Amino acid sequence: MSARYVYFFGNGKADGSKDMKGLLGGKGAGLAEMTNVGLPVPPGFTISTEACTAYYENGGKVPTEVDEQMEQSLNALQALTGQQLGSTENPLLISVRSGAKFSMPGMMDTILNLGLNDATVDTLARKTGNRRFALDCYRRFIQMFGNVVLEIPKEKFEHELTALKQSARTKSDADLQESHLEELIATYKGVVNGETGDDFPQDTSTQLRMARDAVFKSWNNPRAITYRKLNGIPHDLGTAVNVQLMVFGNMGESSATGVGFTRNPSTGEPEFYGEFLTNAQGEDVVAGIRTPMPITKLGEVLPEAYKQLRDITSRLERHYKDVQDFEFTIQEKRLYMLQTRNGKRTGLAAVRMAIDMQREGICTKAEALRTIDPASLDQLLHPIFDIDARKKTKSVARGLPASPGAASGKLVFTADEAVAWAGKKEKVLLVRSETCPDDIHGMSVAQGVLTATGGMTSHAAVVGRQMGKPSVVGCAALKIDEKAGKVSVNGKKAKKGDWVSIDGSTGEVFLAKIATTPSEVLQVVSGKKKKEDSEIASTFFEILSWADEVRRLKVRANADIPRDARVAVAFGAEGIGLCRTEHMFFAEDRLPLVQKMILADDPVERRAALDELLPHQREDFYGLFKEMKGRPVTIRTLDPPLHEFLPKREDLMVKIAVLKTKDKKKNRKKLEKLQRLLQRVEELHEFNPMLGHRGCRLGITYPEITEMQVRAIFEAACQVAKEGGTVFPEVMIPLVSNVKELRAQKEIVARVAQEVMEKEGCTIEYTVGTMIEVPRAAVTADQIAKEAQFFSFGTNDLTQMTYAFSRDDVGKILTFYLDDKNKILERDPFQSIDTEGVGALVRMGVEKGRSARPGLKIGICGEHGGDPASVHFFHKAGLDYVSASPYRVAIARLAAAQASLDEKTARVGD
Amino acid sequence: MSARYVYFFGNGKADGSKDMKGLLGGKGAGLAEMTNVGLPVPPGFTISTEACTAYYENGGKVPTEVDEQMEQSLNALQALTGQQLGSTENPLLISVRSGAKFSMPGMMDTILNLGLNDATVDTLARKTGNRRFALDCYRRFIQMFGNVVLEIPKEKFEHELTALKQSARTKSDADLQESHLEELIATYKGVVNGETGDDFPQDTSTQLRMARDAVFKSWNNPRAITYRKLNGIPHDLGTAVNVQLMVFGNMGESSATGVGFTRNPSTGEPEFYGEFLTNAQGEDVVAGIRTPMPITKLGEVLPEAYKQLRDITSRLERHYKDVQDFEFTIQEKRLYMLQTRNGKRTGLAAVRMAIDMQREGICTKAEALRTIDPASLDQLLHPIFDIDARKKTKSVARGLPASPGAASGKLVFTADEAVAWAGKKEKVLLVRSETCPDDIHGMSVAQGVLTATGGMTSHAAVVGRQMGKPSVVGCAALKIDEKAGKVSVNGKKAKKGDWVSIDGSTGEVFLAKIATTPSEVLQVVSGKKKKEDSEIASTFFEILSWADEVRRLKVRANADIPRDARVAVAFGAEGIGLCRTEHMFFAEDRLPLVQKMILADDPVERRAALDELLPHQREDFYGLFKEMKGRPVTIRTLDPPLHEFLPKREDLMVKIAVLKTKDKKKNRKKLEKLQRLLQRVEELHEFNPMLGHRGCRLGITYPEITEMQVRAIFEAACQVAKEGGTVFPEVMIPLVSNVKELRAQKEIVARVAQEVMEKEGCTIEYTVGTMIEVPRAAVTADQIAKEAQFFSFGTNDLTQMTYAFSRDDVGKILTFYLDDKNKILERDPFQSIDTEGVGALVRMGVEKGRSARPGLKIGICGEHGGDPASVHFFHKAGLDYVSASPYRVAIARLAAAQASLDEKTARVGD
Repeated sequence: MSARYVYFFGNGKADGSKDMKGLLGGKGAGLAEMTNVGLPVPPGFTISTEACTAYYENGGKVPTEVDEQMEQSLNALQALTGQQLGSTENPLLISVRSGAKFSMPGMMDTILNLGLNDATVDTLARKTGNRRFALDCYRRFIQMFGNVVLEIPKEKFEHELTALKQSARTKSDADLQESHLEELIATYKGVVNGETGDDFPQDTSTQLRMARDAVFKSWNNPRAITYRKLNGIPHDLGTAVNVQLMVFGNMGESSATGVGFTRNPSTGEPEFYGEFLTNAQGEDVVAGIRTPMPITKLGEVLPEAYKQLRDITSRLERHYKDVQDFEFTIQEKRLYMLQTRNGKRTGLAAVRMAIDMQREGICTKAEALRTIDPASLDQLLHPIFDIDARKKTKSVARGLPASPGAASGKLVFTADEAVAWAGKKEKVLLVRSETCPDDIHGMSVAQGVLTATGGMTSHAAVVGRQMGKPSVVGCAALKIDEKAGKVSVNGKKAKKGDWVSIDGSTGEVFLAKIATTPSEVLQVVSGKKKKEDSEIASTFFEILSWADEVRRLKVRANADIPRDARVAVAFGAEGIGLCRTEHMFFAEDRLPLVQKMILADDPVERRAALDELLPHQREDFYGLFKEMKGRPVTIRTLDPPLHEFLPKREDLMVKIAVLKTKDKKKNRKKLEKLQRLLQRVEELHEFNPMLGHRGCRLGITYPEITEMQVRAIFEAACQVAKEGGTVFPEVMIPLVSNVKELRAQKEIVARVAQEVMEKEGCTIEYTVGTMIEVPRAAVTADQIAKEAQFFSFGTNDLTQMTYAFSRDDVGKILTFYLDDKNKILERDPFQSIDTEGVGALVRMGVEKGRSARPGLKIGICGEHGGDPASVHFFHKAGLDYVSASPYRVAIARLAAAQASLDEKTARVGD
Repeated sequence: MSARYVYFFGNGKADGSKDMKGLLGGKGAGLAEMTNVGLPVPPGFTISTEACTAYYENGGKVPTEVDEQMEQSLNALQALTGQQLGSTENPLLISVRSGAKFSMPGMMDTILNLGLNDATVDTLARKTGNRRFALDCYRRFIQMFGNVVLEIPKEKFEHELTALKQSARTKSDADLQESHLEELIATYKGVVNGETGDDFPQDTSTQLRMARDAVFKSWNNPRAITYRKLNGIPHDLGTAVNVQLMVFGNMGESSATGVGFTRNPSTGEPEFYGEFLTNAQGEDVVAGIRTPMPITKLGEVLPEAYKQLRDITSRLERHYKDVQDFEFTIQEKRLYMLQTRNGKRTGLAAVRMAIDMQREGICTKAEALRTIDPASLDQLLHPIFDIDARKKTKSVARGLPASPGAASGKLVFTADEAVAWAGKKEKVLLVRSETCPDDIHGMSVAQGVLTATGGMTSHAAVVGRQMGKPSVVGCAALKIDEKAGKVSVNGKKAKKGDWVSIDGSTGEVFLAKIATTPSEVLQVVSGKKKKEDSEIASTFFEILSWADEVRRLKVRANADIPRDARVAVAFGAEGIGLCRTEHMFFAEDRLPLVQKMILADDPVERRAALDELLPHQREDFYGLFKEMKGRPVTIRTLDPPLHEFLPKREDLMVKIAVLKTKDKKKNRKKLEKLQRLLQRVEELHEFNPMLGHRGCRLGITYPEITEMQVRAIFEAACQVAKEGGTVFPEVMIPLVSNVKELRAQKEIVARVAQEVMEKEGCTIEYTVGTMIEVPRAAVTADQIAKEAQFFSFGTNDLTQMTYAFSRDDVGKILTFYLDDKNKILERDPFQSIDTEGVGALVRMGVEKGRSARPGLKIGICGEHGGDPASVHFFHKAGLDYVSASPYRVAIARLAAAQASLDEKTARVGD
């Protein structure tokens, strides 16, 4: 038995249904479903996505079965309508549309009026009694077919049309007479012959086959590939082709065509939303030549059709349990539904719609939760550009959308400038080649950050998301001349103090000021506004409370300082999954102490410097514990290589070399000091610091550092406990690759904790666990679990080492690997976890860890904790919690709920 | 039933046997076996290694069962001998010795005469009629017990002995009278009390328990730990304790004691070898106070005992099928065997002994092969120091023994100096902080290389082994002041031109000239000497031919140039497992072309530079193919990051900064050129180049590089084929982490190969495979195997990424991790494969790879290919071949044979 490739719909029943989106595409499944439900759908058939796959496997040609089955369905359609393709008696006219599983702009979309040729156009003229209409249909068909099937640039046709209108001295298509249209048809045929060397195909079967194959081919055009990549759609799904009886919205004033939504897709308001044109075909509505009318007007123009449309779309919303985006045509007062699908929406609308639909009884809470794209929640947390202001401004370049939100400020080049200008109440935007920990004070006062280099997990990106600061990174077109105080971007120039704007959600860069409006949710979170006073914030938090009812995964936040912890709790974090103690070391009052510690010649000197650091660390932890009110706080001991705290080696080399060219006597002391410093920096220098002297290796070689940190943790904990608070510290050892490393560090933790607790006369419940971030740790997780009371996957580092991708350098490789032409990677593995490679190690770590310690608590604290697809993966892998940056806690909560719901569905489906 | 901890031997039968080395230690198993065989062994018992483990688990105390079982065995010994421990009638005197599974100098060894106290010493005097003898035994016992059990420094006793001899005006112990010895015993007791606060224990049971526990404790003394680490002995085996009836070689001139080997352990000659002393106890032979006599002299002094000894040791050699290292004592003409074990030997001796023993019918070829430590073969390949000259010179420091062999030369600091001086026929030794590819010309003319930094897989180490050049690296004590032309090492100084010597087999460094003798094997391999003229080389190659008869693993070599390939073939390599094409790029005539290629602004310019490189690469491959005569040649496409070929970034920055301080007009052009160069270097700069733009990522971003390399390979192959040669290239793609990378590169290989073959009218059989060196490749090996025709594990990189250890930086961490105090690692994972972590990924890669492509050919081409323990692992993991540096091919052949033999034994044992 050969495979089935073609599915018929019409006359109240269809071979397919709404559950066959994979096979029939969204549009095809929708047409089948609407037919089955009894809606007025023009009959036709869908050629499945499997035919598309077969087309590619067969070297760009469909297997003969597809042709045969299409022939059968065409016959059925001809029988149903009483029309024949190519007949001069009663010609069948059809539309051909693409339709993949996921809606995909950029793919070939629609060809209308197929079946017209020099003969059938006359029949159409005769049967409609409207020769001008028939000729207009024909010239449109040649134009569409020429453009999308024969790949002739649109301009070639537009150019001829414009020329004709000029010679006819008219500006509107509608003013063209029959003779003009006949002339235009001849000209268009000439364009086709000139561009392709062949005549426009008069054989209607050939027209159909060519159109079908063009749809298949458009699956792999660059725009489609880009769209799939941006939206994480697999490249091997293929598209279906929908062939459908033409209905005409352009048969006079009792005909119309339009598109609409059952609710407002921008705001979510429960209003019938859309637009239409009378006497028009589909593309006229979006072409912008005539101004469409708001859909509510249709009630006045064609009241019965309008009533039927409202009725049908309401039924569809209840049927699909989601907001519908539909297309319709009215041919001489008779309504035809051409398409329906779940509507795209903004984050704001998604939340509002979900709550309304549940209240209206259209869907359950679970069903409502599933209608929201977790990533879209982010839109509610960031300032957005004023829509009108944005429309007027053109972006000059695009970088990576590293941290979402719109920002506008005056260009500054250094963190110090940013601080200085911000002190003068100026809004600034920090533009740098790359940022480093030294820049944090500047980043925190800037409206946003723009860098020329770095990837989605570069310093600027990570810190940007951590701070909730709009950031665009890796904008390669940006050429910075810091000394001259100038930048140039694709030929445009700007200087210090000029206005620059960025959209961290799209990566767009503007050399202009654009007004922004702040996020209501953030105003509530930061206490500037009451939740009761914000409808947006109220719905936002209500949705999250629904999510909490169903999710299994706990959600924590990565937070290093009390302010971040407060935000995290406001967003619903159930604990801190990662406190990076080194972030505290970069503070201005501490860096000199840290440097003193590093430059110490022996343990005694080092201990003295550490003793000075201790009160600062204790204060930090005290603040965190207070803020978290007994929720677990995972504190990671010192992680980064020590040279990150010191001046750069190459800068010292240059300074010394330059000093040497000057008067030696005068500079001798300074030179000697620099040389001593360089010597120490050289000693700490590493070729691959990411694989070097960092993580627990620091605590093992300098146990006094771990001792100080543990002392600070437990002194702070005892202080809180004595004040009557509860506190639950979890001490986490980073970069463990061998269980013996953990054992050695755990011994220090236990010893110092005991010492402090005895001295303070206080008992603190605590655990000691480890990061699983080195491949060897995942591979030997059974051994490590014998010592570890919890695991936390550090998926950033794990991805680095599993993929051999350095986070700091991977930008240019990723750009190339994600590029359409190369298609090595579908997604940035630092954004969304690589389930096959890194994920396999995560699964292995979970399995081995729990084999040695049943019930072992396991979390993840990499950047992936805030990525919905990754959260799904972690749920399936059996983790206990994810930890995300505070501003992504809400996303993680919703994604975790959806993962639970998916699991339930899968179980029911078993 | 409680565990058995104590094993008796005596009266012709023993509880243990030679196969119980793990439980009884080597010595205990030997004593049991000798007893069972009927040899004259003083009776006693062995306390097992499990008691040692229990001692540590029990917090440094043996479980009561051990005490109980020891008591029983002691009773049995007392019954057999009719003597009682502590009895003043007939006192039992015993020895207590340590004995682990593997012979371990550095552990507590022996206590003699235990059972003596103030009372029993009188009985011994009375019964032997020799009070001086009894007193001497007692003072020796106090001294030994005081030192090894009570941990009193030896010097404290020696000091008293010397003082006594001075006051007695004698220089020899033998001249001390009874009264002197009585005085000395009193003084020694005073030392014990003074040092420990307790009296010397008079209770003989206490003496025994304390001695036993001291043996257990000595298992973890620093020297023992160091020894285990250097020799790869696990730390958890534990030691056994042997308690044995004392026999006395110091009961007059008819008594004697001695040690010996059944063959000469230095040369392997079949001569009875050893030394003895009459009227002496064991330690006198090695103490160096009296000069022992060669053992053949024993035939004259005590002919019957000698004849019995020759007879027994010959039997033992046949019994154990290996050369024996034995200890004996003759008490009043009666021979007692105290110990026998397989003798340690030099590489030279091992080969000779194996061949002789097989010829003499003592063992089979398989058994003979197993007597040779593969690593010791290395000793035959390198110059060694003249033994006498070496003895006279003291080493000043010790680094890592990176590439074996002895070298002596005049100190030079740069590669250019090395070349200049070598041109003047001077022998030079290159001393640098670290080496880089620029130094290769200097390394190749130097006698040896010494560096201050870097680990066992640093550049100097890898290239040193590759070249067979003696190298010591990471000698931290070495302070280099290149500008002043001076070095200082632990307070000693040397300047340019001074003689320096290094021993690459031990890591020792000498500031002196030491004469060396060249390797005969190497002279044969390089064609300077005929094999027939060298007995050493003949035996060496005969052993290898035996190994070939049993091994399953194939052995290839890593070789980049024809000269290395020739050496590899001479050593028996069956192919080239890794040709690093980038090594060819560093040659003086090519580097400018490579730089031109890298600095190219666009693909056209880059292609032009590549076109110039093509003939050079083709020539290289032609030479390799010719040399390998149809054996497979695995060629890896370009691997290292491109900036390795460019000037260092920091050097350029310094140059530019300095130039800027000078007359600007004069230097403008130079400055601009440098700035342009720096800009490109900055673009290529990476924070972690090991995880950066290298490996197949180069070939994917610059496909023209891969195209050029493939063209060169196939043009060379066609040329050889046309000349009638056979050739089998295997193109290997490095750093693949995702199957799509391999697919993309494979497509280029196939296309260009086809092009070349068509043009040349030639068909070359070839395969395309990949390195498995990124953890993700191992994890997704099933996907990768669908595209790869072979796998080659790059265990250097795989270790780097699995462990998060940067090869270039790991030195200081490893020093710390391998240190006795920390015991995080037992072995350097870059030297011997980490079977638990990296090894698990290798096993996974093999399993998944073959699941997708049954019979997939799999090899390994990291540094581990020449490490015997790793070769065993690779054999077990089911690999097809290992590829080692040419100079380690012989070691790999023998190790592979032993792995096959072990497997057979294991199967028989099933």
